[in-house]
Amino acid sequence: MQGKFITFEGPEGGGKSTHAKELADALRAEGKTVLETREPGGTRLAELIRGLVREEREDPPVTRSEVLLFLASRAQVVANAIRPALARGEWVVCDRFSDSTFAYQGYGRGIDVALLKDLNEFATEGLKPDLTILLDVPPDVSRARLAERQCATATSADRIESAGELFHRRLRDGFLELARQEPSRFVVIDSSGPREEVSRGVMKAVDRIR
Amino acid sequence: MQGKFITFEGPEGGGKSTHAKELADALRAEGKTVLETREPGGTRLAELIRGLVREEREDPPVTRSEVLLFLASRAQVVANAIRPALARGEWVVCDRFSDSTFAYQGYGRGIDVALLKDLNEFATEGLKPDLTILLDVPPDVSRARLAERQCATATSADRIESAGELFHRRLRDGFLELARQEPSRFVVIDSSGPREEVSRGVMKAVDRIR
Repeated sequence: MQGKFITFEGPEGGGKSTHAKELADALRAEGKTVLETREPGGTRLAELIRGLVREEREDPPVTRSEVLLFLASRAQVVANAIRPALARGEWVVCDRFSDSTFAYQGYGRGIDVALLKDLNEFATEGLKPDLTILLDVPPDVSRARLAERQCATATSADRIESAGELFHRRLRDGFLELARQEPSRFVVIDSSGPREEVSRGVMKAVDRIR
Repeated sequence: MQGKFITFEGPEGGGKSTHAKELADALRAEGKTVLETREPGGTRLAELIRGLVREEREDPPVTRSEVLLFLASRAQVVANAIRPALARGEWVVCDRFSDSTFAYQGYGRGIDVALLKDLNEFATEGLKPDLTILLDVPPDVSRARLAERQCATATSADRIESAGELFHRRLRDGFLELARQEPSRFVVIDSSGPREEVSRGVMKAVDRIR
């Protein structure tokens, strides 16, 4: 039996990592085997690529290079981690996947989204999630939560997180547009409310694909 | 005035690095400013990507990931090194470029060449060399020279160089096919002969674009 593939998407500050982890734990508590992964990352090579994209400040990737690095990481994690897990009948919970490329580099940075979809098709060999949970937050909540996190950990914003307000608005609208285009794959959850409510929404969404 | 962009292509062991360096020196001796670069590599980020592709043995890139890493490196070096140099009217001499992707991952590893051309178009934003010098060597000469070099430097073959004989034959035929498709851009030089003869062929080819 083929496993199930669930992705979490949305702007920063929407609680993707938290809810992805919580869902993976809940599925494990039901006795399922779960692969938890994140993008970019998820295999050794992909983590090395993640490092290049997020931390290189001396010679930061131009947008097209950034796209191709994300896709290289995705091709690796799809071929060497996600597809094998799905073939074994496991559940895969991924923190970001293809829709982040369409939202960030497409709607956010202005690269043609149709072109990005073609490039992504090459990287994933057509693999699509069974369910994508979009944790939606308005740009001001996203930015406030980010600022809090940076304050708490005394880190500075990384290259992507520190982009401007207009970018964050285009990003959020982009995610919502992607969800409108594929209503059977997406569930949009308002993530500005209490965490427990969001968790209930996530579990309800997952019931759709059981 | 826009500069000139020359690439060296061909199987390993054809003397690309040697002749690229020699040409760059000859052009400098004429008073020209020359950017010498290599692929993958040529900017700090591109060199880091080169390291990932050529040296990662624990989690080696799957073919699609390898393609995307090469293209990410190319996008960076085109945007941050080659285009700026050409805009300043300089000459650019590059050891490998797009045709290596079509030959290695296309003809060599079986990825659709038309698809690779589309992906490459995205990475380069359509930049093409003014002249491509294909240093052609038969597979047995290529392999013998490689073996010699490895012996001399006591290094082991890297991941790509150590691919099998059939691969090397497809590779060479692929380069020749690319040259047939674009006779106005390519000059094919038999590189199995004496070095001085090859050098003369290179200088004669360059005269075509002066």
